[in-house]
Amino acid sequence: MKKNLRPIRWAGGILSLLEQRLLPLQEKWIHCDRAERVARAIEEMTVRGAPAIGITAAYGVALAARKSKMANPKFFQKEILRAINRLRQTRPTAVNLFWALNRMAHQLEMIANEKVIEQKRILEQEAIRIHQEDEVLCSILGKYGSKVLAHCHHVLTHCNTGALATGGDGTALAAITWAAKKNKKLHVWVDETRPYLQGARLTAYELAQARIPFHIITDNMSAYLMRLGKVDAIIVGADRIVANGDTANKIGTYALAVLAKAHGIPFYVAAPTTTLDLTKKTGQEIVIEQRSSKEVTSPQGVAITREDYPVFNPAFDITPGELISGIILETGICRRPYGLSLKAAVLKKRSRKV
Amino acid sequence: MKKNLRPIRWAGGILSLLEQRLLPLQEKWIHCDRAERVARAIEEMTVRGAPAIGITAAYGVALAARKSKMANPKFFQKEILRAINRLRQTRPTAVNLFWALNRMAHQLEMIANEKVIEQKRILEQEAIRIHQEDEVLCSILGKYGSKVLAHCHHVLTHCNTGALATGGDGTALAAITWAAKKNKKLHVWVDETRPYLQGARLTAYELAQARIPFHIITDNMSAYLMRLGKVDAIIVGADRIVANGDTANKIGTYALAVLAKAHGIPFYVAAPTTTLDLTKKTGQEIVIEQRSSKEVTSPQGVAITREDYPVFNPAFDITPGELISGIILETGICRRPYGLSLKAAVLKKRSRKV
Repeated sequence: MKKNLRPIRWAGGILSLLEQRLLPLQEKWIHCDRAERVARAIEEMTVRGAPAIGITAAYGVALAARKSKMANPKFFQKEILRAINRLRQTRPTAVNLFWALNRMAHQLEMIANEKVIEQKRILEQEAIRIHQEDEVLCSILGKYGSKVLAHCHHVLTHCNTGALATGGDGTALAAITWAAKKNKKLHVWVDETRPYLQGARLTAYELAQARIPFHIITDNMSAYLMRLGKVDAIIVGADRIVANGDTANKIGTYALAVLAKAHGIPFYVAAPTTTLDLTKKTGQEIVIEQRSSKEVTSPQGVAITREDYPVFNPAFDITPGELISGIILETGICRRPYGLSLKAAVLKKRSRKV
Repeated sequence: MKKNLRPIRWAGGILSLLEQRLLPLQEKWIHCDRAERVARAIEEMTVRGAPAIGITAAYGVALAARKSKMANPKFFQKEILRAINRLRQTRPTAVNLFWALNRMAHQLEMIANEKVIEQKRILEQEAIRIHQEDEVLCSILGKYGSKVLAHCHHVLTHCNTGALATGGDGTALAAITWAAKKNKKLHVWVDETRPYLQGARLTAYELAQARIPFHIITDNMSAYLMRLGKVDAIIVGADRIVANGDTANKIGTYALAVLAKAHGIPFYVAAPTTTLDLTKKTGQEIVIEQRSSKEVTSPQGVAITREDYPVFNPAFDITPGELISGIILETGICRRPYGLSLKAAVLKKRSRKV
């Protein structure tokens, strides 16, 4: 990979985001100096990917703090809470967004009695820490994940879970890029990932830069490849994993898991523990975001069919834990039954700050 | 449906084809007066759909005959055979193309001793007959197919199998439109059908004209809908059905069949007996056409990702007969084991000219 592809950059009080909607045809950056601009960048998917959304939102809070003209700590606190609530409204499914904003809100509460200038400094530091921690997590996920792919020839992945989706090397894609360092015959099938084409645009971009062999396929081709014996493992990321292992991830993930089971192919999920939401028992409790029909009728803004035709466009689906061969966290690889292994992972995380 | 949507028209020695690549955004006709123009229209997918390809190719032969300047029957015959061979090279998977061309070649052979002017007339008549017969077949398929959908609320279909794919109302889509006449609560999930988007463009166009409720989905959403209990039946067409029921159809069909089985949903194929190829024992003997990577990287000619990224683009896949709940032919509905039922259908067809 081009050394350290890092699409979220914080410097001099400006949050710079690589405009992912234009990749791979254009590399353009947008620069945010206000929380509202950050919120819109998340809504419009300039930045996407569960961990990246959380990091970006945290910087949004830091920007709100930096820009505040309040001198009174009480009014300052109220203003920042408003910004946090605004950022909370951007996207409903990925839990990392709420995790990062809760952490910022918790920090805010802890420093309520400090001077405003001190509060600003601490909030900025906290956002930077969230970003740095994710970078470390990605490396650990890459290392653990690469183990399950060590002997694979063909690995299939969905959506984008690389540097463009996180604060570091990625989650599922980090597992692939780390595995490819040792396993020179590794080849990747890249689901184009309709409607938003994160695979064809972003994962292909990252793999091309990393010089890892790949082919883009349309999402409906994977079953045929499995039938031909050309898929040794599937690995994807996650937007939210609940107590029983049910996993919300990009629409199309559930189909892959069912097809993997029917063909006897292992199916892995890789994500940091910040993606866990053990307050929910099953996937049925997860809110699935419905997005605009134009994403389907007009990919990349160009109409492929009439925009007034009715469309159903859920951004995510739920994969039952029972279809997942292993969930790769920074604490290690969890196996079924996830009710036990995920709880153990959280305890391990709390006890030794992995 | 708008009365008699008929995308293949023959009049005054001109074959007019509705330019399907521009639908539904534009309704434009192209007019062919030479066999070579017809061959290119098939290759470039101005016309597609297994039965429609066969009909179009037959008219291509009629055009070659009409345009021929040969006065000697022997030279005339050679010229027409050359045209037939050229048309044979256009697309490899759909068997109807070869069936129609073989029928024209057979007719040509039968009339070798006639005057050239008489041969021209007979070849034109034969092409018209192939077209008219397909129209009748579609009505019968619509009637039989509508029975299996009689009590469905949500039916899912893939690709386009309607008037735009045939010489009449269609195959699988005819079953849907005929069922909708009686079953007013019928609603259709339309797979967009990447890469060529026949669902989002053509099936949606036909259903909108017929005022049948539908939603377009991306191909990776169907499994999620099945999980939600929102799919009561799946019905698709076929490009080639071999002796054991293995069916070549648009890429993505196999995935649907596996997913249908996993969710206990009936999965039907509707096609005329001209789609049968009982000379082949299993689907492994079917040649799968590989198409240009640009269909994936540049849908409708607009780049969504870099055109130099590697792509795998098979146009079809094979669905094993064992995953198909029923094959709807104009002779009736065949059930497993297809080795017996398909052979019986062919005998029935021969004996009483359905």
